[in-house]
Amino acid sequence: MSNVTDLTSDRFHDECGLFAIIDNAEAANLAYLGLHGLQHRGQESAGLVTSDGQTLHAYRRLGLVSDVFTPDVLQKLLGPRAIGHVRYSTAGGTHLSNTQPFVVHFRHGSMAVAHNGNLTNALILREEMERLGAIFQSTTDTEVLVHLMARSGGLDSVETISQALYRARGSYSILFLTPKMVVAARDPHGIRPLCLGRIGDAWVISSESVAFDLVGATFEQDIAPGELIAFDSEGKMQRHRPFPQKPNRSCLFEYVYFARPDTQLDGRSVYHARKEMGAILSQEHPVEADIVIPIPDSGTPAALGYAQKTALPFEMGLIRSHYVGRTFIEPKQSIRNFGVMLKLNPSRAVLDGKRVIVVDDSLVRGTTSKKIVENIRRAGAKEVHIRISSPPIRHACRYGIDTPTDEELIAHSKTPEETAAYIGADSLGYLSLKGLERAVRSKGNCTACFSGDYPIDFHDEGRILQLNLEGL
Amino acid sequence: MSNVTDLTSDRFHDECGLFAIIDNAEAANLAYLGLHGLQHRGQESAGLVTSDGQTLHAYRRLGLVSDVFTPDVLQKLLGPRAIGHVRYSTAGGTHLSNTQPFVVHFRHGSMAVAHNGNLTNALILREEMERLGAIFQSTTDTEVLVHLMARSGGLDSVETISQALYRARGSYSILFLTPKMVVAARDPHGIRPLCLGRIGDAWVISSESVAFDLVGATFEQDIAPGELIAFDSEGKMQRHRPFPQKPNRSCLFEYVYFARPDTQLDGRSVYHARKEMGAILSQEHPVEADIVIPIPDSGTPAALGYAQKTALPFEMGLIRSHYVGRTFIEPKQSIRNFGVMLKLNPSRAVLDGKRVIVVDDSLVRGTTSKKIVENIRRAGAKEVHIRISSPPIRHACRYGIDTPTDEELIAHSKTPEETAAYIGADSLGYLSLKGLERAVRSKGNCTACFSGDYPIDFHDEGRILQLNLEGL
Amino acid sequence: MSNVTDLTSDRFHDECGLFAIIDNAEAANLAYLGLHGLQHRGQESAGLVTSDGQTLHAYRRLGLVSDVFTPDVLQKLLGPRAIGHVRYSTAGGTHLSNTQPFVVHFRHGSMAVAHNGNLTNALILREEMERLGAIFQSTTDTEVLVHLMARSGGLDSVETISQALYRARGSYSILFLTPKMVVAARDPHGIRPLCLGRIGDAWVISSESVAFDLVGATFEQDIAPGELIAFDSEGKMQRHRPFPQKPNRSCLFEYVYFARPDTQLDGRSVYHARKEMGAILSQEHPVEADIVIPIPDSGTPAALGYAQKTALPFEMGLIRSHYVGRTFIEPKQSIRNFGVMLKLNPSRAVLDGKRVIVVDDSLVRGTTSKKIVENIRRAGAKEVHIRISSPPIRHACRYGIDTPTDEELIAHSKTPEETAAYIGADSLGYLSLKGLERAVRSKGNCTACFSGDYPIDFHDEGRILQLNLEGL
Amino acid sequence: MSNVTDLTSDRFHDECGLFAIIDNAEAANLAYLGLHGLQHRGQESAGLVTSDGQTLHAYRRLGLVSDVFTPDVLQKLLGPRAIGHVRYSTAGGTHLSNTQPFVVHFRHGSMAVAHNGNLTNALILREEMERLGAIFQSTTDTEVLVHLMARSGGLDSVETISQALYRARGSYSILFLTPKMVVAARDPHGIRPLCLGRIGDAWVISSESVAFDLVGATFEQDIAPGELIAFDSEGKMQRHRPFPQKPNRSCLFEYVYFARPDTQLDGRSVYHARKEMGAILSQEHPVEADIVIPIPDSGTPAALGYAQKTALPFEMGLIRSHYVGRTFIEPKQSIRNFGVMLKLNPSRAVLDGKRVIVVDDSLVRGTTSKKIVENIRRAGAKEVHIRISSPPIRHACRYGIDTPTDEELIAHSKTPEETAAYIGADSLGYLSLKGLERAVRSKGNCTACFSGDYPIDFHDEGRILQLNLEGL
Repeated sequence: MSNVTDLTSDRFHDECGLFAIIDNAEAANLAYLGLHGLQHRGQESAGLVTSDGQTLHAYRRLGLVSDVFTPDVLQKLLGPRAIGHVRYSTAGGTHLSNTQPFVVHFRHGSMAVAHNGNLTNALILREEMERLGAIFQSTTDTEVLVHLMARSGGLDSVETISQALYRARGSYSILFLTPKMVVAARDPHGIRPLCLGRIGDAWVISSESVAFDLVGATFEQDIAPGELIAFDSEGKMQRHRPFPQKPNRSCLFEYVYFARPDTQLDGRSVYHARKEMGAILSQEHPVEADIVIPIPDSGTPAALGYAQKTALPFEMGLIRSHYVGRTFIEPKQSIRNFGVMLKLNPSRAVLDGKRVIVVDDSLVRGTTSKKIVENIRRAGAKEVHIRISSPPIRHACRYGIDTPTDEELIAHSKTPEETAAYIGADSLGYLSLKGLERAVRSKGNCTACFSGDYPIDFHDEGRILQLNLEGL
Repeated sequence: MSNVTDLTSDRFHDECGLFAIIDNAEAANLAYLGLHGLQHRGQESAGLVTSDGQTLHAYRRLGLVSDVFTPDVLQKLLGPRAIGHVRYSTAGGTHLSNTQPFVVHFRHGSMAVAHNGNLTNALILREEMERLGAIFQSTTDTEVLVHLMARSGGLDSVETISQALYRARGSYSILFLTPKMVVAARDPHGIRPLCLGRIGDAWVISSESVAFDLVGATFEQDIAPGELIAFDSEGKMQRHRPFPQKPNRSCLFEYVYFARPDTQLDGRSVYHARKEMGAILSQEHPVEADIVIPIPDSGTPAALGYAQKTALPFEMGLIRSHYVGRTFIEPKQSIRNFGVMLKLNPSRAVLDGKRVIVVDDSLVRGTTSKKIVENIRRAGAKEVHIRISSPPIRHACRYGIDTPTDEELIAHSKTPEETAAYIGADSLGYLSLKGLERAVRSKGNCTACFSGDYPIDFHDEGRILQLNLEGL
Repeated sequence: MSNVTDLTSDRFHDECGLFAIIDNAEAANLAYLGLHGLQHRGQESAGLVTSDGQTLHAYRRLGLVSDVFTPDVLQKLLGPRAIGHVRYSTAGGTHLSNTQPFVVHFRHGSMAVAHNGNLTNALILREEMERLGAIFQSTTDTEVLVHLMARSGGLDSVETISQALYRARGSYSILFLTPKMVVAARDPHGIRPLCLGRIGDAWVISSESVAFDLVGATFEQDIAPGELIAFDSEGKMQRHRPFPQKPNRSCLFEYVYFARPDTQLDGRSVYHARKEMGAILSQEHPVEADIVIPIPDSGTPAALGYAQKTALPFEMGLIRSHYVGRTFIEPKQSIRNFGVMLKLNPSRAVLDGKRVIVVDDSLVRGTTSKKIVENIRRAGAKEVHIRISSPPIRHACRYGIDTPTDEELIAHSKTPEETAAYIGADSLGYLSLKGLERAVRSKGNCTACFSGDYPIDFHDEGRILQLNLEGL
Repeated sequence: MSNVTDLTSDRFHDECGLFAIIDNAEAANLAYLGLHGLQHRGQESAGLVTSDGQTLHAYRRLGLVSDVFTPDVLQKLLGPRAIGHVRYSTAGGTHLSNTQPFVVHFRHGSMAVAHNGNLTNALILREEMERLGAIFQSTTDTEVLVHLMARSGGLDSVETISQALYRARGSYSILFLTPKMVVAARDPHGIRPLCLGRIGDAWVISSESVAFDLVGATFEQDIAPGELIAFDSEGKMQRHRPFPQKPNRSCLFEYVYFARPDTQLDGRSVYHARKEMGAILSQEHPVEADIVIPIPDSGTPAALGYAQKTALPFEMGLIRSHYVGRTFIEPKQSIRNFGVMLKLNPSRAVLDGKRVIVVDDSLVRGTTSKKIVENIRRAGAKEVHIRISSPPIRHACRYGIDTPTDEELIAHSKTPEETAAYIGADSLGYLSLKGLERAVRSKGNCTACFSGDYPIDFHDEGRILQLNLEGL
């Protein structure tokens, strides 16, 4: 009878969040709280592995951080060190076997690994490893890295990890935990973020600085592209640069959408960057209008920037519901755009008779935007002008962001004018790439999804992971 | 080891939401969707009862609308008529036996009842009914009303219901469903809201107009205080005024906090009313400052109104997390104010070095505000000025809102200056009652929680429901 | 695709089991253990209500005793008195609202009631109560009794309960718990069992003596037909005979099938009674054969009696699986009699080439027996002779046993010869009613299901409970 | 407060059951039914993997067969071939990662493996594999075998599997499934059982013949020790003998306890073997007594054999409850032996005043027997004589049976007389090893647990799996 509709489609998805804490009596508890602050980076699964110096203690499940961990579970995650992971699937399906941190036993003993990013030569390496007799039980890049380590001739953990990462191409921010060591590393281009902080005497590491706020830690610095930091059994930190120097290519899209607004990336406040995107956008694409409204919450800072720059009134014309789960049951005779309305209800009292500028952070497939424009018009808006605080997304990400394929990206084949017509807007304006770079104070970020200029070759091009398995 | 902390304390809670649909082929589905739109009015339990003309079909459970109803359940809720209910406990505990719609069998046949409000003579009536041989299985006011009906000499449903309601004092918006009839009524003072709409040929009834938006229905009018509307087996509507005329006393607090901003109450947009509260507040309590920030989302419209009126920049200085459940596990060595931070993280980039005006809709116990002020200061704010877009709440509600007792209300015993000192703010300003009434275009609303002027006597004063039962 | 088959059909079902304990520090725990020993009398729901002298503490859920109760729940069931109930539906559906003990609040305060039996004038009383203004929330007989009490003019609990029971016809063993009192009663004919025991200083009451074994209690005596026993707030026991004397009519079928073999009923060991049924059966229906096998476990004692009397070898020719749940998923192309085989697999090594006597306790619809005979033949048996250790069941029970209707009972319309042909047996022999009475040392038991001689009129004849409600 | 007691202690546990079906349209459904028939061999987890010729479809979970599989799951297990597994932990903990069939991807593609048995050189091989760069994610022997395959130079599946198994020592009955092949093999000593059957045109393979009865298959023959049977993509069967010939050493304990009585092992009915064990036991250890009772159900056939041989009456003196889960909540003041009584209640009517012979299949730690003897005496027995239908178990199994360590085995350190004193019996008699071998018509079975004569060296002696991981 009724259908169940997924409310999460047509959006980018954050892929992973990492958190580590080294030598604090409440490691599991604090890592759990830190993962809460990174929940926006992955809602599919969560995991923690702790070390008590002798033994690793692991727990991973599908679900949100608050659902996965209970007081009972946290109590059993013993020891003063922990690494944690939240995940949304990029490579690899949603199977339990793909949850992280990934744990293996090999000649170096037991090791847990948590990875954020996407290797561009994972399949090549996988095939090589399989030729050498490796068996795989997941579809994750992480398992490939672990096989590289298992075959490494390295004399210690740092050497072993360095040798394995040396062979990897693509993006990775990554954490390793053995009974005696913690190692964190960021790929030479620094595509995915990773930063270092302190809470009392303990070091903490996080994908985003916002998690430090939550656990009462202070931000120390971003881990540099190509840097590998190791903490030995006594907690002494050693910093390494095992890889050839590469230009910084940290992801621009983290500023646009992924990172929380209360995070700092490479020293730049995401909130202020987004406001400035809106301000620049207002100059690049001015239009006569009565009000500026955001698509909450992701479009709110840019809309504020737009409104402040133009002195147009900023209003909440779409009311976001706080009780929407991932799905709802649809009526047989579908109510037009019900799902989008349930999430973002247009307020007639605000919109009726108005010329409305709607600010969103990005436009992917355009299907949701089309519905929102339609809903806003039905609520009485006279004109609907869409302003996007990022350039057209024309190319799929290959470094760990779950974008649709090129063909599914509306900007891949449609001009802004065609797109405006498709979504039913009176006008559509995108922020220019230059404008975006100005707003983030860019120092050479990766712009691949906008420009097609991929800083790292996609070595796996044309290869497909041939699995012959459907796990349920 | 760890404690579990409830993140929902120190807030008002809406108590109930009602939705009905009369004579639509997809009654259960649409009522389910309507309840989604009223979820903010009660997150503890949800229920639907449908009628196929012969038989009632009922389903009630603890949980959110999206958790309670599955496609299987909706498919079994047969028939073209439905009444639905979401509930947060005001009177009566959280037991399953208190979920609604309440269903009984008596000499008039089977009947389902869904009630929003609080009777002020429920215990008197209960005692009277018990003296006459009634047995009770719940602690709800609704069961009292049903006993009144069971003893009524009325010749038909309308008469029976009228006679029962005639004896009730207090507040009620209420829906009745029998195999043949639907009846909706609102108490003579009209304290709790209830409105009428249409979707195609079908009538719909809702606590708030926002639910009409969601199901594609059009708002027709508010059901008048003291009005009783009956729909017979053919769907014909008859409107009755069975009670003595009373002055309108619809709840002012719905405007301040309970209702969604995209709802209209008595013809007034809640969003605009809240913005105007903020604007008037800015005139009543001006202060030198750099930015205006809301406590999101409840304080957002008033903060916008405040900022627009004063031309101060409106900023999102507290970032609300969308992944916070009702509880989290606390670390042993408590991180100061972690729970509040997890929900509302202060953004240093916005707040550092600033004189900040923080706008919220209301101040109840003050404990959360105290934590928020502290967090904002730790994020670098130079000054913190709290502005509340409602008058001091000095008195507990007796008509269906779950306020703390008088003693727990900070404004009951503390002046604004004392309160400012307690919560650590540089200044604190409340909107005046006059200002609030101006903002909502008041026509005589109930102001009891602010003024202590209770429009209906609390006849149960001094009586306690002596239950001798703890159900688990 | 696949179908789910219910493995529990075509059997009698016990309906309810009762357990009470008065004044023991571990009342809830011991009552919980006692209910374990009565689980065979009802697997659908379980409940416990305790009294701490001031307040009742209640917990009832659908499920087995071991699933319903957790240490957390038991810990909250405070106080030294408890009554418990397990239930399989006889009257009333499987809804949560029908679980027991039933708890109400009325002018006498709070009361919990647990009932085993079936009233034969429940609908008449229900209609009468409804005419007087009663509302009903369940379909149980118990709620009718409570309404009678609510209207009673009795001055104390004993008087109130006596007056209510005085109006009831049919069968009941029943327990009442108020904050201050425990009352147990058995209907004047004593149809359903109830017995009294002691554990240390505490009194215990149970449907069957086997529960006393489990909690370490000693059996004192059966509660007499028509007896009402009250325990006051100090634990003093008073025995009453408030009803007119009636002849004993305790249920004969308890001996045949319902009661556990390790129980004593009216002083007679059920195990020995069943063995003697088998022995007498072997004389009434002798046949040349090689082995005697039971339908385990219900037919085992009678088969032993049959084999011992005839000196034929007793063998386990059907192996009962201990891992069969209530349902399994059937293949598309149904395997003949899979469900029955999964439960009772015929052992070829035992049966091949043999003339087999199969002893079961009763024959209801004959559909399962037909499958078993077929399975036994496929396992190689040369002859299959069915022997039933009870007379033909020709009439539905009206006093609380969940038999099929007369029409569904195979013996209602078919002679033993016709039945043998239907189930494919070489011969079929039933125990005579005289033989059964001899085996149980009968003192005038109810034989209605065999003889059609109903000791109590069915006053509700022709009445149907018109509910107009489908609860989910 | 209350403790939760495990009712499953002090018993042997079957470890694994295997089932396969090759080329039947309902493969998943039939394998599911087959696993039902092998549930007694492992109640901890269940899994099925099917092949549709291109892709494997896998589902594995902790739980009973009836709980793990739903119609939805079975429907998604596509294809005409399936292998299934039920498991109780022997080697490896109860973690999800140890459930089987085990599935891997390697250079030979995807493969599923299901294993019953225990390798005696698993740790040696594991260390070797780790030295060569293997990573492990479970603690199962199966993963070791897969690594051997991954490194094999074999040209096809049969060769690859043979080469891997060639290196393995210990016991294994094992199934392999690839998209194109099914392979079954039994170790050269044939320690664990495995047999072949047919259902229509399809081949079926099972640990025990009883599963064939259930799915309507016919038993063809036992798979011979050292035999490897391969089914190619067209379903053609090829039988191989890739290993050096070894003497048959099939497990004697399967006859004593593990196998179902309705199974045939090496052509011998387990039921008849057990009856004969009882008969021989009665001659080896005669005693004056009134009745013979079994510990049901495992002791029932031997007790029947004992009673028939001695012409003593066989009685059900202990009533087994069918509603006992794995745990129950204990009262604070423990009722003596409650757990054992709940499971096996002694019937006073049978036992009172009697000299009782109690027959059980085996005696492990003696703790349960001690409680049973005590309970039987409290029920009035004058004398209690324990007769065990197997020799004293003095040595732990190394080939896949989950026995306690030598030290925990009561017979390892106590004589029968000392044991009788410990458990409180008037006498204790064990069946002799000769008697047991006579009863099973032994052709050289493994007797290690009785005699200490281990047919295969325990190569891993002294090695410990050093894991440094606690998975939750």
